[in-house]
Amino acid sequence: MNRLEKALEEAQANLVLEVERLLPESQTPEGRVVAAMRYATLNGGKRLRPFLVLTTAALFNVARQSAARVAAAIEFVHCYSLVHDDLPAMDNDDLRRGIPTCHKAFDEATAILAGDALLTKAFEVLGGASTHPDPQVRIDLVVALAEAAGHQGMVGGQMMDMQASKHPMDIPAITRLQRMKTGRLIAFSCVAGPILGKAHPNQRQALEAYAHDLGLVFQITDDLLDVEASTEEMGKKTGKDADQGKATFVSLLGVERAKSQAQALGEQAVRHLESFGDSEPANLLRDTVQYVLNRRN
Amino acid sequence: MNRLEKALEEAQANLVLEVERLLPESQTPEGRVVAAMRYATLNGGKRLRPFLVLTTAALFNVARQSAARVAAAIEFVHCYSLVHDDLPAMDNDDLRRGIPTCHKAFDEATAILAGDALLTKAFEVLGGASTHPDPQVRIDLVVALAEAAGHQGMVGGQMMDMQASKHPMDIPAITRLQRMKTGRLIAFSCVAGPILGKAHPNQRQALEAYAHDLGLVFQITDDLLDVEASTEEMGKKTGKDADQGKATFVSLLGVERAKSQAQALGEQAVRHLESFGDSEPANLLRDTVQYVLNRRN
Repeated sequence: MNRLEKALEEAQANLVLEVERLLPESQTPEGRVVAAMRYATLNGGKRLRPFLVLTTAALFNVARQSAARVAAAIEFVHCYSLVHDDLPAMDNDDLRRGIPTCHKAFDEATAILAGDALLTKAFEVLGGASTHPDPQVRIDLVVALAEAAGHQGMVGGQMMDMQASKHPMDIPAITRLQRMKTGRLIAFSCVAGPILGKAHPNQRQALEAYAHDLGLVFQITDDLLDVEASTEEMGKKTGKDADQGKATFVSLLGVERAKSQAQALGEQAVRHLESFGDSEPANLLRDTVQYVLNRRN
Repeated sequence: MNRLEKALEEAQANLVLEVERLLPESQTPEGRVVAAMRYATLNGGKRLRPFLVLTTAALFNVARQSAARVAAAIEFVHCYSLVHDDLPAMDNDDLRRGIPTCHKAFDEATAILAGDALLTKAFEVLGGASTHPDPQVRIDLVVALAEAAGHQGMVGGQMMDMQASKHPMDIPAITRLQRMKTGRLIAFSCVAGPILGKAHPNQRQALEAYAHDLGLVFQITDDLLDVEASTEEMGKKTGKDADQGKATFVSLLGVERAKSQAQALGEQAVRHLESFGDSEPANLLRDTVQYVLNRRN
């Protein structure tokens, strides 16, 4: 196992521990919504966002507990967005990571409520005193997450995506859509470290730029896998973009140009890390670019 | 027009201004979700929660802008909960305040996203520097709202409510459900003032106790109106509880005992205000109890 695989496994284990701490099972009458929240978060995801929080936090020697809580908060938001996106009225997906989606395992009403509660929980966790002793740091996290997740960010991107079949899209439009839909939350994962570590604005900007490029690489490889991988490999339905006639980086650029575009963006992402030198976390962030470029699911 | 009617009208006008400021129309491709957010909030609600924020803030001479922003944030959360509760998978309501519900006016996917974005926006607004100069105050608001709205509060109460037809409920269970489903957010509206004004904990506790009693009075009168009022008067479907065989304060206590219970709780609510003397905002809070007891919609 290489150092990145080891760090990703650590991030996964860390996330599970933190979710157990923040969201224990509940025997109350409303315990069903807690069970659905746990189902949606404890399902063996890649935990890329928690890993990015832990790694960018390590660049600035942030306390482990602070980073772990912020990592959990971001994963709550990511998982809520998956639960709502999978709903029949949205993407209508039955499978996620190889197991039934939340509304299939529970029911639609419970899935809607579980998503709502996960989003709310994220802000509760960021605001909690044990996230950081300085309230200004906690409020910076709250505002940055809200801006990344709301109508100017993730939700706005999802809205654009829902309308994409109606409006023909070109590369600039898709780039904007993806930066909002997935890029903003990945970017927040990478600026969480510098916010917690009260880093110099230049360092925060460098990591934000890295994250934006990484996010686009992630999206282009996602589009490529939708064309090239099987449902079994991905643990979710593939070939969906073409079925829906949706414009993607791959449908507009073709497979080869999409691959070289991902490569170029990956190189640019790595260049943004120059000022962080040869430290272990900086190298992990460099490895991440290769990992995303080469991923098979 | 009496002083309470005047104050409620002011709160309504104030809310509309603040929503226009925080959520202007957007011509971007994702503007549809902003349009749905505006539709869900600019629909002539009673604005009881914004009124409670403005009035409890006035008890402590809080700056107008601070109170107005917090009032808007709470109304965003209240309106998001209505949008999601109205969805086909939840209460499946076509009418709200006499006009089509959000998913009827737009579509289900847009309504889900608009609710998500309104909830997110609430935290963005509370966290914004112009809400209060002290970041500790803003973080206290964020945490208090998250606790009131999440699985331990409003969402948990809604989850219980969805299961109510399966589990027979008694008065203690319904009281707990309603304290979570509607009481916690009303309580947050009343502690927003003391949080913003850095009031003594005793004052905060008195207003929280007032809010809890007021919330139950509101719920009991809601149950009474569901039995006694017409769909036309209420601007939403009535007679639903009985149709669904749902236990309510009225089905368990009968109309007369429910009315005397509401009266007794109302008197208790007023007693919690004793320490605030004869000031204008304290009198408005007293009038509110009578207003809720006598409301016809």
